[in-house]
Order: sequence, then C-alpha cells, then structure tokens
Amino acid sequence: MFERIALIGIGLINSSIARFVRQDGLAHEIIIYSRRQTTLDKAMALGLADRAETDPAAAVEGADLVILGAPVGANETLAKAIAPGLKPGAIVTDVGSVKSAVIRDVAPHLPEGVHLVPAHPVAGTEHSGPEAGFAELFQNHWCILTPPEGCDAAATEKVAEFWRRAGSTVDIMDAEHHDKVLAITSHLPQLIAYNIVGTVLDVEHVTKREVVKYAAGGFRDFTRIAASDPEMWRDVFLNNREAVLEMLGRFTEDLAVLQRAIRWGDDKALEELFTRTRAIRRDLIEAKQV
Amino acid sequence: MFERIALIGIGLINSSIARFVRQDGLAHEIIIYSRRQTTLDKAMALGLADRAETDPAAAVEGADLVILGAPVGANETLAKAIAPGLKPGAIVTDVGSVKSAVIRDVAPHLPEGVHLVPAHPVAGTEHSGPEAGFAELFQNHWCILTPPEGCDAAATEKVAEFWRRAGSTVDIMDAEHHDKVLAITSHLPQLIAYNIVGTVLDVEHVTKREVVKYAAGGFRDFTRIAASDPEMWRDVFLNNREAVLEMLGRFTEDLAVLQRAIRWGDDKALEELFTRTRAIRRDLIEAKQV
Repeated sequence: MFERIALIGIGLINSSIARFVRQDGLAHEIIIYSRRQTTLDKAMALGLADRAETDPAAAVEGADLVILGAPVGANETLAKAIAPGLKPGAIVTDVGSVKSAVIRDVAPHLPEGVHLVPAHPVAGTEHSGPEAGFAELFQNHWCILTPPEGCDAAATEKVAEFWRRAGSTVDIMDAEHHDKVLAITSHLPQLIAYNIVGTVLDVEHVTKREVVKYAAGGFRDFTRIAASDPEMWRDVFLNNREAVLEMLGRFTEDLAVLQRAIRWGDDKALEELFTRTRAIRRDLIEAKQV
Repeated sequence: MFERIALIGIGLINSSIARFVRQDGLAHEIIIYSRRQTTLDKAMALGLADRAETDPAAAVEGADLVILGAPVGANETLAKAIAPGLKPGAIVTDVGSVKSAVIRDVAPHLPEGVHLVPAHPVAGTEHSGPEAGFAELFQNHWCILTPPEGCDAAATEKVAEFWRRAGSTVDIMDAEHHDKVLAITSHLPQLIAYNIVGTVLDVEHVTKREVVKYAAGGFRDFTRIAASDPEMWRDVFLNNREAVLEMLGRFTEDLAVLQRAIRWGDDKALEELFTRTRAIRRDLIEAKQV
C-alpha cells in the first residue's frame, strides 16, 4: 500500500501499527522517530522498524504516509519539525483522541501538496510504550476519520483503506462533532475514573491494603481505566477543554441531584435512575459493543 | 453441614448459594421464600430447592441456617416475619453489602437463642434473578463477617466454614468499619457509574446510537457496573447513607479541583494525578486482585 511509512512516536498505538503493517506487508519500509533514544532502542530491538531517526524531518523524508502518534500536545512542535522533510503528495495522519486540535495545530505548518487526514482509532489498553503494542489491537474497533474541508478524497480513501486493513470499521465525521461524541463516550469516563481513584487513595481512615483487598466490589474496574498513559490523557483534556468541561458540568449537576436523593431518602428517584441506566447495557449488547 | 437451609429471597446471590450447597451436599434440604410467586416458580423449575414457601415463617421452620438475600431495605420486615418460625439455636445470616443496618434492623426481632452472624460475600455480576446465579460465583472472593458484640463464637465459625466451602476467603471485622471500607471500594464507584451513565443518556446533541457505537472508548465499562440490580443498590445507598455521603463529598471536592486544572491548563496537576492513580494498579496486580 505504501512505499515508506514514518511513525512519529512509537508508543502503544504506533507500535501496534508497525506490527500489523509488517505482518500484512503494507509498506516496504518503516521509519520511526521518538524524542527518547531508549524508546527507539526498544522499538528497534523489537524489530518494529527498518530505521530509527532522532530528527523528525529526517524520519519523514521520502515517506508517503506519516503517522503522528505522540501525545496530542506535541503535534504543533512536531508538525513544524517534520515540515521541511515532507515530500509533495505525502499523507500526514495521526491517531489522537481529539481531532479539532490536530487540524488547528498541524494543518498550518504543512507544505502545499501534503494531505492532512486526521484519524482516531477507538482502541487502546491501559498499557503504554512500544512493548505494549500488538497487531490485533484495532480489529473490530472503529476508526474515525475527520478530513478537514477541501481534503483530498483520494488521500482520505487511502487512509480509510489502511484502517480497514488493520481490521477496523471506518467512520467519517466532522472534527468538532467527533470531539463532542468522544468527550461523552471516552473523555468524561476517563476523567471520572482518574478522579475516583485519586479520591480513594487519599482516604486516611481506611488503609490502602484494605482498598486493594476489596477492590473487586467495583473499584477495580476504575483502576484499570485510571492506569492509562498520563501524558496522553493530560493532552486530551487540555485539547478538548470546552467539550470536556461541558460534560463535566452536566455530570456534577446530576451528581448533586443524586446526592440529595440519598440524603433525603428519595428511594423512587434512585430506583428510577438505576433502572434507566440498566437499559443502555442491552443496547450495547444488541450492538455487539460488549 | 446443615440439616435445612432456608433462603429468604432467591436472586443472584441466594440462587448461587443454592447451587453450591446442592453441588457439594452441604444441606439435606433447601427451602426458599420469595415475595414473588413467579420467582419461586423459576427457582423451582431450575431445581434450586426442595420446597418453596410464600410465608416467611413457614420457610424458616426447622431450618438451622437462614440466609436473608433480599434487598437490605426489606430486612426489618423480613426479620419480623420469620421470627415466629425460627427454631432455638438457628443461625440467621445475610448476604447484604451493608452491615450496620442489618444488625440494626434484624437483631431486635430475633428470639433469644437465635444467632445473628451478618455476612457480605464480595462477589456479584450485573445480572440478577434466580437464573443468573452459578455455583462458582464466590470462588476466590472475599466474604466479610461482621458478628455483633457477644455473638456466639461457634455460630460465627460455622458461617465462616460455610463460606470457605463456597471457595471464599473469610475476613472478620466490625460492621461500622466494613461499611466505611465498602463505601470506598464499592458503593462510591457504583454510584459514580450510575451517575455517569445517566448523564450520558441525557445528552441531547449526540444520539444514543453514537454513544452505543463508540462506547469502547471507556463508557462501556461504566454501563456494565450501572446495569446492576436497581432495588439492591437503592437500598445499599439508603442504608449506608453517612459513609456514602462522606465519600461523595470528597469525590466532588477533588473533581472541582480537577475541573479547575483543565479550565486553566494546569498540565502539571493533571499529570501528577494521572501518574499517581496509575501506581495503584500495580498494587492490585501484585495482590492478585485483577
């Protein structure tokens, strides 16, 4: 599919991409860049690339596909750094969880004739680093493309086909709508998981040993989510600020009502909410999302 | 181990008990009570009991072990109802997620010579009803006993042995401490899951179809938790009100700080929290709690 793919950043997502590209022979050559030499060494030892570069412009030279896979806060700096190396007709894509910010930070710095096709593979685990990746990560997951207005249709289709080869189902939507949808289905849950785990760790009248011991009661599920990559998520929240704050406002409002219902013993209100939330699970099961 | 076990309520937990009792021959006879005839019919069809009773007192007659397995809010009514049928020396236990309330609601109504040994098997699924149970539910889980002061040591040991036979590890603690620990590890996470699913369902600018579609981003885990039995959880929150409200206050406080950090772009604060929460996961893995 491609002559040369340049992977900018080689964490969980990009290292999984390297694996399926190699496995299915989707590129003749893979070049990787990371700002950390140790990460590059690990990735090379794992056989994930043909060449490692510590200069972003050198990494993207001659590449027909460039995939930005660093935390989204690094995109602007990286876009400036790769720009001199990009060849005409190259496609630049990414794997970030926010999409308006990518267009804002990357598009202005790309030379004419280079196509930006932002992508968000909705897949991941709580592990990070090049050793955490695996070729099957994207299978049976959605990959959302948010091509900006005027984006080259052939470039978009090529990125779409790339993700289909990864085993994903491709969806195309507006970047702003993507950020609203994901603020709900992903960013808010992630934030709440971080918050609850933080709250629990601070409790002084129950030992951490007891928390660990009885974590099966529900807390455990939150710890898995809250074990996800700190830098990646820091940048997601900072770069989808408005949508996240909007959802957080709604969440807090609802929580105040729930708190009041508990304080005043409003059994009807509790039962009504808990019955309503149960129903969505059936929808997920029917949509084969569990 | 027992001549006759009476199961008061035959939902997920008590029907799982019926299954392992039968499987391991821990009682000669199982009698079940439910306030719903259809539930009794289902349980009898599943072969879970020798006899079904619609009168609580008749159900416990001659039983040497009585297990209360209805939502905890029903305990006081049930304790009054079974009292006339209880034989001297019988052990009354339960399976509820709150323990101070059980002692408060049940103890005053039991005849002299009957032993109350409250128990909390820390196990469950998001399914409910007699068809949802399975014999292995309690294997490799904790079961916490909270015998009140002056409780008969032999009765406590008998209940402990019963749970060991179920495959659980038994822990003994004070009811009040139990309620604080579980408010943290179980009740707060459950409440937050209900709240977030409720908030998401109310969002009007994103369709439910989209929420279902992209639920893999994190929301999915919350829907599983929020699919748990509504009546059971309503009663847990109302009967562990103080500890739950205390934890909720801490959670809300922390969330306000987190919200402010996002609004003002405090990347250090976000990264610090997210790094701290990641560490607890390692503790859980080391404690074999995942």
